[in-house]
Amino acid sequence: MFDSSAYKRRREALRRSLADRGLSSGTVLILGNRESPMNYADNAYPFRQDSSFLYFAGIPEPDLALTLDLETGKSVLYGEELSLDDVIWTGPRPSLRELAEAAGLDGVRPRASLAGAAGSAKPLHFLPPYRAEHREELSEILGIPPKAVETKASGDLIRAVIALREIKEPREVERMDAAADLSADMHRAVLARARPGVRESELAARAAEVALAGGAGLAFPVIATTRGSVLHNHDHSGTLAEGDLFLMDMGAETVDGYAGDLTTTFPAGGRFDPRQREIYEILLSAFRAATDSIAPGVPYRDVHFAAAREIFTGMKALGLARGNTEEALAAGAHALFFPHGVGHQIGLDVHDLESLGEVNVGYDGQPKSPQFGLRSLRLAKPLKPGMTVTVEPGIYFIAPLIAKWKAEKLHRGFLEYPKIEEWVSVGGMRNEEDWLVTDAGARKLGGPFDKDAAALEAAVGSEWKGNR
Amino acid sequence: MFDSSAYKRRREALRRSLADRGLSSGTVLILGNRESPMNYADNAYPFRQDSSFLYFAGIPEPDLALTLDLETGKSVLYGEELSLDDVIWTGPRPSLRELAEAAGLDGVRPRASLAGAAGSAKPLHFLPPYRAEHREELSEILGIPPKAVETKASGDLIRAVIALREIKEPREVERMDAAADLSADMHRAVLARARPGVRESELAARAAEVALAGGAGLAFPVIATTRGSVLHNHDHSGTLAEGDLFLMDMGAETVDGYAGDLTTTFPAGGRFDPRQREIYEILLSAFRAATDSIAPGVPYRDVHFAAAREIFTGMKALGLARGNTEEALAAGAHALFFPHGVGHQIGLDVHDLESLGEVNVGYDGQPKSPQFGLRSLRLAKPLKPGMTVTVEPGIYFIAPLIAKWKAEKLHRGFLEYPKIEEWVSVGGMRNEEDWLVTDAGARKLGGPFDKDAAALEAAVGSEWKGNR
Repeated sequence: MFDSSAYKRRREALRRSLADRGLSSGTVLILGNRESPMNYADNAYPFRQDSSFLYFAGIPEPDLALTLDLETGKSVLYGEELSLDDVIWTGPRPSLRELAEAAGLDGVRPRASLAGAAGSAKPLHFLPPYRAEHREELSEILGIPPKAVETKASGDLIRAVIALREIKEPREVERMDAAADLSADMHRAVLARARPGVRESELAARAAEVALAGGAGLAFPVIATTRGSVLHNHDHSGTLAEGDLFLMDMGAETVDGYAGDLTTTFPAGGRFDPRQREIYEILLSAFRAATDSIAPGVPYRDVHFAAAREIFTGMKALGLARGNTEEALAAGAHALFFPHGVGHQIGLDVHDLESLGEVNVGYDGQPKSPQFGLRSLRLAKPLKPGMTVTVEPGIYFIAPLIAKWKAEKLHRGFLEYPKIEEWVSVGGMRNEEDWLVTDAGARKLGGPFDKDAAALEAAVGSEWKGNR
Repeated sequence: MFDSSAYKRRREALRRSLADRGLSSGTVLILGNRESPMNYADNAYPFRQDSSFLYFAGIPEPDLALTLDLETGKSVLYGEELSLDDVIWTGPRPSLRELAEAAGLDGVRPRASLAGAAGSAKPLHFLPPYRAEHREELSEILGIPPKAVETKASGDLIRAVIALREIKEPREVERMDAAADLSADMHRAVLARARPGVRESELAARAAEVALAGGAGLAFPVIATTRGSVLHNHDHSGTLAEGDLFLMDMGAETVDGYAGDLTTTFPAGGRFDPRQREIYEILLSAFRAATDSIAPGVPYRDVHFAAAREIFTGMKALGLARGNTEEALAAGAHALFFPHGVGHQIGLDVHDLESLGEVNVGYDGQPKSPQFGLRSLRLAKPLKPGMTVTVEPGIYFIAPLIAKWKAEKLHRGFLEYPKIEEWVSVGGMRNEEDWLVTDAGARKLGGPFDKDAAALEAAVGSEWKGNR
């Protein structure tokens, strides 16, 4: 946790921001998360506090809730004290009053009294729930069916929380640097252990070990695969073979909840083959084009197209594409190779603030493009200093997608299908770093991590070569 | 997955068992699990299928459901086919029809049609939900509030499922052996890496690595602590010091969902001190008394008291307790040292079948004792061949519990409080293995794992001593 004054200031800023939006009465309710049952009530997944609760109160304990009275500015922590049985089974915990003090909150009340207090608060402002437990609780408080709860979430509160959380404080940037460094340690450990014959599950496990030893664990489920052309492939049943590319998209969460999210693609046998290398060099220039274009005021859509432009240009040079690049980009032809967005905000959530609605977070409430590829871009709006984002262009040869587009004769003026089909065995690759938008431009989060082809080749399997 | 005939036979056995209970009309509904959101809808915890769904259909995919018509015996799989977008993002999956065939199911229908089909099934038999998503869905199907859903669960179905799942088939025993062996590998890896100066989180992480590399991951959150007197301590912020005992209670889940659950307590510095050693020897004889008493027909309550008797006798020999042992056990005085139960069933759930109600699973529906200690015993009923159970006696010096009992003058005729207080620094220890009840008696699951004091002492820190 940060110092209590940090949370106090954030809640004051929220109140001011809501007042600026014309909201100065009623009560804000932020529900902390409950335990999430795995296969029965008492066998829960590792506890993860709600990120907005973490932001405004910082306490990483289950079954809490927080109210903020917009007229008086007073905040109350709802929870239960531990019983002696709890202390025997799960160990001591600070009292509710101590927890409230640590977060700079004004008072404490029993968790059971929340429904009554929130039910009589007029109006009640809350965020859209993403867990069924919260839908259930809000449904009872409001006396409406669970499915109707989301429609009653407060748009002004959503916009105010986004405006606050998306600009990282200096102390948060420190944590984001640490998250990026810990995530890079995961990648280095996997690079060092990789060689033909190693199972994907062994490498995924090694990454999890590094994240758990140094932080809270994984920020999101690990991607560690020889089949990089499946964008979010969580299967780890394969084994590395000579000639394979290995793609790892993985990040750690710091103990206080900040996420890292990095992707590295490398040759399992320690040497890119010529075609892999060609595509990898195009990927790195797309990546540099993207990071070079990050600056305050620049719409992230432009950063996306900076990467897309390099990819399409590179494909033309290889004879896999043709025609006017700007026309191809406008039509979406490049998305055959690059079917996802170039990045998203990152912070307490790996897709930061995603539960508040992608259109609110990434598009300032404006509609998203329905075009294939572009519709997967989560962030398009202008950047501001203090934002932290991922930069993650990728190039893929996705057999079922190529087959479908070819059959439908899509973008025939831009894509050389027979040539493209010859390259399918390259599979997929992606490169990803986390970046901070600064007043002057942007900088990478965390220390250096050399992704040049030669540096990766040297790092693969180093654990087996050295003096260990 | 097992062969499709395994699932077919289990569903037929369920239908017969329900018919024997007078239930031969209506529809059984088994809901497969959905993804469990962590901090927003798309960032889910690792998927874990519902254990009863795994038992009756074996398919480890989210968003499925299964119905069994008790009149016709026909079973239907409800689910959705993947879209091209799903294939691009998460990779190919067998079609619903292929999944249904693999599980020996008779037909497939769209998931969206389940509510209608289940709503018109009269009567609908279902198990009590432990996830809010299922409460929500059943509430809609039945047209009753979420809180009322559990009261409508079918008692006959609960009893029939318990009767089937609690007797492990030979192919399940094989998996239980594998789960115990993989869990033992976790313990051996931690023993090898432990030494003063190592952080608890490094050891917890190493255990997770072994479980993830060789199986589906952890069967339950890891306990890896120098504070063994807190029974379920999931904090890993400490560092091992000379003189500490280290307690690890951890187990792996096999890829098909079977759990291991072992506990080992060892000296962080590689040598038990004299007091730790005295208590450890009492623990091992309590453990042996428990395993020696396991046999078909024996109530597990007797196994619990076999361990309790050794513990109380040992404490008398050390001068920490006095009086008639049987009277002390009847009064519950031993529970100061041994405040939990000696074990529970284990299988597809680490506390097997717990979501179906502890009193149904462990007590044949009879009431549990409210006595401190005994009320934490999850299994008391007579054992049957094919049951798999944990055996896990522990001895603890729990300062807040000792202080409370002393202040309340509890069991003064049996407990030597001043002497007990002198031993508080020993903390807590537990020893746990997984056992199978056989026709002849019982056998340990998995291969040998020597828990004698000398064997543990030799194993501690071996990774640092060897030639690596």
